Amino acid sequence: MTSTYQQAASRLSDLTAIEEALGILQWDQEIVMPAGAAEARGRQMATLAVLAHQRLTDPQLQNWLAELVDDTSLSTFERANVREANRDLARAVKIPPDLVRAWGESTVRAHEVWVHARRAKDFSAFEKELANLVELAKRRAAAVDPHRPAYDVLIDEFEPGMTMARIDPIFAELKGFLLPLLERVRAAPLPCDVSWLQALVPAEQQRLAGESIVRSMGYDFNRGRLDTSVHPFCGGAGPTDVRITTRYQENAFVGSLMGMIHETGHALYEQGRPAAWADQPVSRARSMGIHESQSLLWEKQVGQNAPFWQHHLARLQTQYPFLQAVSLDQFVFGLNLVDFNNFIRVEADELTYPLHVILRYEIERDLFSGAIEVHDLPEVWNAKMQQYLGITPPDAALGVLQDVHWSGGSFGYFPSYTLGALYAAQFYGKARQEVPGLEQGLAQGDPQPLLGWLRNRIHQHGSVWTTDDLVTQATGEPLNLQHFIAYAGAKYSRLYGLK
Amino acid sequence: MTSTYQQAASRLSDLTAIEEALGILQWDQEIVMPAGAAEARGRQMATLAVLAHQRLTDPQLQNWLAELVDDTSLSTFERANVREANRDLARAVKIPPDLVRAWGESTVRAHEVWVHARRAKDFSAFEKELANLVELAKRRAAAVDPHRPAYDVLIDEFEPGMTMARIDPIFAELKGFLLPLLERVRAAPLPCDVSWLQALVPAEQQRLAGESIVRSMGYDFNRGRLDTSVHPFCGGAGPTDVRITTRYQENAFVGSLMGMIHETGHALYEQGRPAAWADQPVSRARSMGIHESQSLLWEKQVGQNAPFWQHHLARLQTQYPFLQAVSLDQFVFGLNLVDFNNFIRVEADELTYPLHVILRYEIERDLFSGAIEVHDLPEVWNAKMQQYLGITPPDAALGVLQDVHWSGGSFGYFPSYTLGALYAAQFYGKARQEVPGLEQGLAQGDPQPLLGWLRNRIHQHGSVWTTDDLVTQATGEPLNLQHFIAYAGAKYSRLYGLK
Repeated sequence: MTSTYQQAASRLSDLTAIEEALGILQWDQEIVMPAGAAEARGRQMATLAVLAHQRLTDPQLQNWLAELVDDTSLSTFERANVREANRDLARAVKIPPDLVRAWGESTVRAHEVWVHARRAKDFSAFEKELANLVELAKRRAAAVDPHRPAYDVLIDEFEPGMTMARIDPIFAELKGFLLPLLERVRAAPLPCDVSWLQALVPAEQQRLAGESIVRSMGYDFNRGRLDTSVHPFCGGAGPTDVRITTRYQENAFVGSLMGMIHETGHALYEQGRPAAWADQPVSRARSMGIHESQSLLWEKQVGQNAPFWQHHLARLQTQYPFLQAVSLDQFVFGLNLVDFNNFIRVEADELTYPLHVILRYEIERDLFSGAIEVHDLPEVWNAKMQQYLGITPPDAALGVLQDVHWSGGSFGYFPSYTLGALYAAQFYGKARQEVPGLEQGLAQGDPQPLLGWLRNRIHQHGSVWTTDDLVTQATGEPLNLQHFIAYAGAKYSRLYGLK
Repeated sequence: MTSTYQQAASRLSDLTAIEEALGILQWDQEIVMPAGAAEARGRQMATLAVLAHQRLTDPQLQNWLAELVDDTSLSTFERANVREANRDLARAVKIPPDLVRAWGESTVRAHEVWVHARRAKDFSAFEKELANLVELAKRRAAAVDPHRPAYDVLIDEFEPGMTMARIDPIFAELKGFLLPLLERVRAAPLPCDVSWLQALVPAEQQRLAGESIVRSMGYDFNRGRLDTSVHPFCGGAGPTDVRITTRYQENAFVGSLMGMIHETGHALYEQGRPAAWADQPVSRARSMGIHESQSLLWEKQVGQNAPFWQHHLARLQTQYPFLQAVSLDQFVFGLNLVDFNNFIRVEADELTYPLHVILRYEIERDLFSGAIEVHDLPEVWNAKMQQYLGITPPDAALGVLQDVHWSGGSFGYFPSYTLGALYAAQFYGKARQEVPGLEQGLAQGDPQPLLGWLRNRIHQHGSVWTTDDLVTQATGEPLNLQHFIAYAGAKYSRLYGLK
């Protein structure tokens, strides 16, 4: 006899298969699809999305999942699986079909309008579409939970359990830490020459060097790929088919290299998801913030510090001869150079990046509370840029129009980037404390001490715990900003010779 | 108000989208998928196949399609669309689910067993699986139509409307033409040196030369790709996303080149399907035989004759210097060299290929009539090889185990290859008659006179007509073997200097 749980799990497995197929169609579209196939691809993906929605909201599955909520005979993973499936289901059934359709059509249109507006550097061309999306996002949030602030409901989609009430004090304290630190960094003289950062490195050479570093981090090419795309991403179809991409800028090899290490961090999390549950919701990554913690841990904590390069720099120097005159300390300094003239979030360094995020968080929060209007955004944006980073974007393309997120309706996503940086510092600090040979391993090119800890504490748990429980079990406490403050304070004081 | 037809067409459009998604997953699996993803990919594809089956056999769609059969208000394309959809539906509902499952499981298992049996050159290891598939195929055929011979029902799946009663006399006459012609060719001395056929050409050079020829044939890379795979194929996802593959053998450049031209012929048909109906069954290729006629027309009628090479040889000679000593006549002779020592169908020349097919057709026909048993196959195979081609395979891998078809349950497919060759001769003969500048165009590197005729007479009609009607409208008569006989007789008499 098939149990109710088994019947539900079988349906959920079908849903995962459809989502994975969509993952491949998406990857294909970005990497190999002929341009002329765009319209047909839209039809294919929309059809699969509708099928997935129909299968998820099928009354039989709803009944099974409702019944299973109180089934105490289930294992921990099974209970978590039911919880995650019910979470998906709740959003799917609460948002009415006409709103789903309006949302789908509006985001596609808004994205196109945004592409043109950004090219024309003209926010006013995008304003109407954005105002419409904000309105629809408010309606979506009200449909999901009319009793909570809209922006909390939106954040929850990416970061289950996170709220403005928790983020506000964290971001306020973070801002209070970063702004004076940045002033001191700004005043400090550069300790060494960094002109090698602009050295010309052909793309193919970058690919070879990068691929060998990606491999050395433990990325399994038998269950993954590395390709080239305009916008780097980590996608694919489940833990046995993880696909990362990068781009090669010939006069900015560090950006490409760090991008690869970053995406590999995401990919290691995906490849480490619990294999026995790979076709079930519980195997998925815990949240966008935890996902970002894995990419940033490898990029910032590992890839921009000395132990990792003790092993890799010598090899890179044989591949890039211009680096032979650069010492390990100089190289690590260059990787962490704080750039006070950068307007673009995705190109920001470790210290200014959180301010880019806080700016967006505050704008979104105030937009959804009604404190500001879409019409005000350019002015608010530029004022905050001046206040936090001391620069004013010369045009909207370098300012309020730079990110793709709003054009796709992703409101509430930005905080995850900086929450990820905070989690990363907390995880890495704990791992270094608990695993004696961790940095020695990195210095010898062995990622296993660190990777083993991450697999054990984070990856293999998928979504079985809440974020707070996961973080507490991994580090002994929930999210604690002090780890990032201690880490960043010490690191940049050392790099810039601050007293 | 949405009409019944529109409702049905919307469902059929969803089905096409799922099939196209499957096309991409299939291509991805062959070309780019990481090896470790095989199991997950099987799950994804099986799930989409089941969804497609459920959507097709949904009672509402069945009712609509039943109602529309007699709707005289429909346009010609709409009526044909209903007919084709009902054809799919009939097979889907008539074959019982337990047989569908047994078929799916048996073909997967048989394929694996065949791979090992072929490697071990041991037919007995495959015999049981093959006997099981033949039995299941008989049951499938009986489920679809218990009143017709099983083999006719199987042929009909690939070649709608074709029967043993029509094929028997055609293949008998073709055999009667080929066997004595081959005797005369065998006795004729080679008119020139052909050692350049074995010249070593690096894969990358072959790719460059081949790609430029593929492009010159009118293949639209904006709606297609060209990649490398172990087994060349033409796949993808509809007319705007056609994907062909090839393989490069460094000591057999002609094989790779002709393979590319062959797949491009398939691809031009796919790219020429009626765009306005691209998401409906009526837009599909008419039959496997008509599909093969398009690949063979370009490969054999065009790509292995002088006009095409009047344009392309000079360029190829600059790319492959060893060809500078080879004249146009010598080159064309080499392309058409009849190989009397070849055991393998896919490597056979134009004159021996049909005999490979007739051998398989006769075996399948006698297997399904009960005249022979699976156990007899090696003996029957070798006897027919000796009788038709004068050679006996040294082992089963070069004999009865060479083709993938039976291991996947594709019984009744083989005739399409040779029907395609016959259609190709008929189409090309008619086109040359009707389009005055056709070969002049080819000799100047312009495929449009020929391609325009094919688009107009074949491609744009999709499945709107029956095969006989399509061929009659294109050439003034249904399939007529005499066109091939006249063409091949003249060509090989000329090439081999036969009296």
